[in-house]
Amino acid sequence: MSSDIPLADWTMGISRSALQDMLTTCARPDMLSFALGLPAAELFPTEKYAQSLARVLSNDPRSLQYGPPLQRLKQQVLEIMRLRGVHCREEQIFLTAGAQQGMHMLTRLLLNPGGRVVMEQMTYSGFQQVLQPYCPTILTVPTDLDTGMDVDAVERFLREEPRPSLIYSVADGHNPLSVSMSVEKRRRLVELARRFRVPIIEDDPYGLLFYGDSCMPPLRSFDADWVCYVGTFSKILAPGVRTGWLVVPENLVAPLSVIKESIDINMATLTQRAVSDYIGTGDLSDHLPVLRAEYRRRRDAMLLALQTHFPTGARWRTPESGLFCWVELPVQINGSELLRLAIDTEKIAFIPGFAFHAGNGPCLGSALRLNFSANSTAVIEDGIARLARIVNGLLSNRKLDDRRALH
Amino acid sequence: MSSDIPLADWTMGISRSALQDMLTTCARPDMLSFALGLPAAELFPTEKYAQSLARVLSNDPRSLQYGPPLQRLKQQVLEIMRLRGVHCREEQIFLTAGAQQGMHMLTRLLLNPGGRVVMEQMTYSGFQQVLQPYCPTILTVPTDLDTGMDVDAVERFLREEPRPSLIYSVADGHNPLSVSMSVEKRRRLVELARRFRVPIIEDDPYGLLFYGDSCMPPLRSFDADWVCYVGTFSKILAPGVRTGWLVVPENLVAPLSVIKESIDINMATLTQRAVSDYIGTGDLSDHLPVLRAEYRRRRDAMLLALQTHFPTGARWRTPESGLFCWVELPVQINGSELLRLAIDTEKIAFIPGFAFHAGNGPCLGSALRLNFSANSTAVIEDGIARLARIVNGLLSNRKLDDRRALH
Repeated sequence: MSSDIPLADWTMGISRSALQDMLTTCARPDMLSFALGLPAAELFPTEKYAQSLARVLSNDPRSLQYGPPLQRLKQQVLEIMRLRGVHCREEQIFLTAGAQQGMHMLTRLLLNPGGRVVMEQMTYSGFQQVLQPYCPTILTVPTDLDTGMDVDAVERFLREEPRPSLIYSVADGHNPLSVSMSVEKRRRLVELARRFRVPIIEDDPYGLLFYGDSCMPPLRSFDADWVCYVGTFSKILAPGVRTGWLVVPENLVAPLSVIKESIDINMATLTQRAVSDYIGTGDLSDHLPVLRAEYRRRRDAMLLALQTHFPTGARWRTPESGLFCWVELPVQINGSELLRLAIDTEKIAFIPGFAFHAGNGPCLGSALRLNFSANSTAVIEDGIARLARIVNGLLSNRKLDDRRALH
Repeated sequence: MSSDIPLADWTMGISRSALQDMLTTCARPDMLSFALGLPAAELFPTEKYAQSLARVLSNDPRSLQYGPPLQRLKQQVLEIMRLRGVHCREEQIFLTAGAQQGMHMLTRLLLNPGGRVVMEQMTYSGFQQVLQPYCPTILTVPTDLDTGMDVDAVERFLREEPRPSLIYSVADGHNPLSVSMSVEKRRRLVELARRFRVPIIEDDPYGLLFYGDSCMPPLRSFDADWVCYVGTFSKILAPGVRTGWLVVPENLVAPLSVIKESIDINMATLTQRAVSDYIGTGDLSDHLPVLRAEYRRRRDAMLLALQTHFPTGARWRTPESGLFCWVELPVQINGSELLRLAIDTEKIAFIPGFAFHAGNGPCLGSALRLNFSANSTAVIEDGIARLARIVNGLLSNRKLDDRRALH
């Protein structure tokens, strides 16, 4: 009894999303998940946000009505951008229903069907999904795990014709690779964008979640004309508020508002007022250091557990920002096999690295993305020890197989 | 200091939205607005919804976390669809952030760039905006103000090659024309969709706001395979909840969830839980008859005021559903001029009919869309009387001009 409705051509390439499948798997209460980029729910300022919602609704029933974007929230976003090291103007702020919507809108604004997009070989799968309906040519560049995106490779693509329509970058707390780009490379990347007149989408969900003394300057702080900055409250407040923002050149705001109207009528009156009320209480400035301290503790617990339990030959760096450790295992390990075993025998989930692979080049099959924000330090220590047992078991079997093959 | 970022080709055709401009104009506190399709804010169950939000947040902090679509809400939507005369299954329900998002997603699923779309000459501008990035060929059919869409004209387009990708219809409480389609035409339209294998997007924001004894059967009640139904809580609960749904053939749900993930990660945990909690209190079944009774009173107040104050030659029908009266004035009246005068001299706003004109054919310049849901009966009577004064003044001037021209 299936429908025969003819679908648009691009849908032929649709595949189920690994992250969406994982969301269902990880919803099982007995699952220990390192899989998703979930912020810690027990740190959400739930009670204070509930008070903000109640205050807003009791003050004005039109909080549930259609209404224009909230100017006061834009002004508060300016303050947040200042914390982030960016001085911008209210006329450059555009409010969204979260970072994913911001990227969806920018892509609609910038990319023609069949256009060219520069991104890293390992790229957040949500952005790859955004591109799918445009059937674009994906131009991928390597990433150095200490300094970030290969900017020389970007330049080679920018020199080619036809010119790419955009460059996608997560400069801080890269997802999935966890590297933060060196300042030197940031400067060069924005210079290239300006020189070749190709805009950068800077996806910055983690910039304020830094674990050193201060945050790195985002790409947007080097150039106001060629960087379209994507911000969100999902990681610093809560995903459930479904609120984010863009910082763009002023003349892009009018077309963006037409796009937003076409995708959801451009209004989220209640949510925007509640987030604004919450920020108005001053709580966010106290909340951010709490988040950073706790996530740093969890990161350190994961690094220590990896050090203690994972085999020689496994490699990782210390993430300076974001929610993930990127772990490369000896090449004998197959990420899919490990995931299946981990879920079946230990009820532990993670995302294998190849799920983030963009383009068609070769891909390390033995890497894992491990989230450290969603679990307590005790759970992290236990989970990494159990995951290590499976890894070590697989490696012993492989060695046994190899020896057998020798005989 | 404007940015030189090259935009996608389709944005050349972008124009500011009349509705968005009007939203700003009507936000002025001294403005009497018949312009927007606003439900009555004083009827929102604000306190009960605030209680639902508080209950949900205090019961589970993960209400602010990422999470999959809420199954319980889908089951509640089944009940609402039953009220609407449709028996469907949970596997056919897809939750959205409102009707506009539903249409955006269905279009992405069904329409290739440059494809063909069948719609009425007068069509909700929000749907026209959805289509813009696809640069489609728009095939428009006339509408009879008593029986709705010209189904013969639809058939002629369906016989042509290449086959259209979709038909857009608002069968109940048409926006802007306020007609509800005859049952006979509904039956024929879905038969055509099935015969020619062209799906219908049925946009149904007003179906439960009917002013007779019962609602008309929606297109979806005649065919489960070729009608994609778009529902929303915006008009029956409040726009601020930003929640709606689709009823589609089951096999479209998987690709829709990939599309939804790409546009906003497919999660609105808090809102979906709060709406579900509110419906769970049983309040919605009491709320709907209250809405219908009050909107009927307001409709009748508007019809009486039109009858009393508007000049001979002005024509309108009695809307059986929805939020609007469609008024055709004598052709000497220019809708833009009338709007300018109404705003400047009487601070009264409405939308001139031509703002809804799709395609390139001729268009009646003297029609108005007047909303009757957003104001009390007293304000409606006063506003229509004042608007009539301007209309009558313009007509007298025209007559004077005509007489002068004769001499």
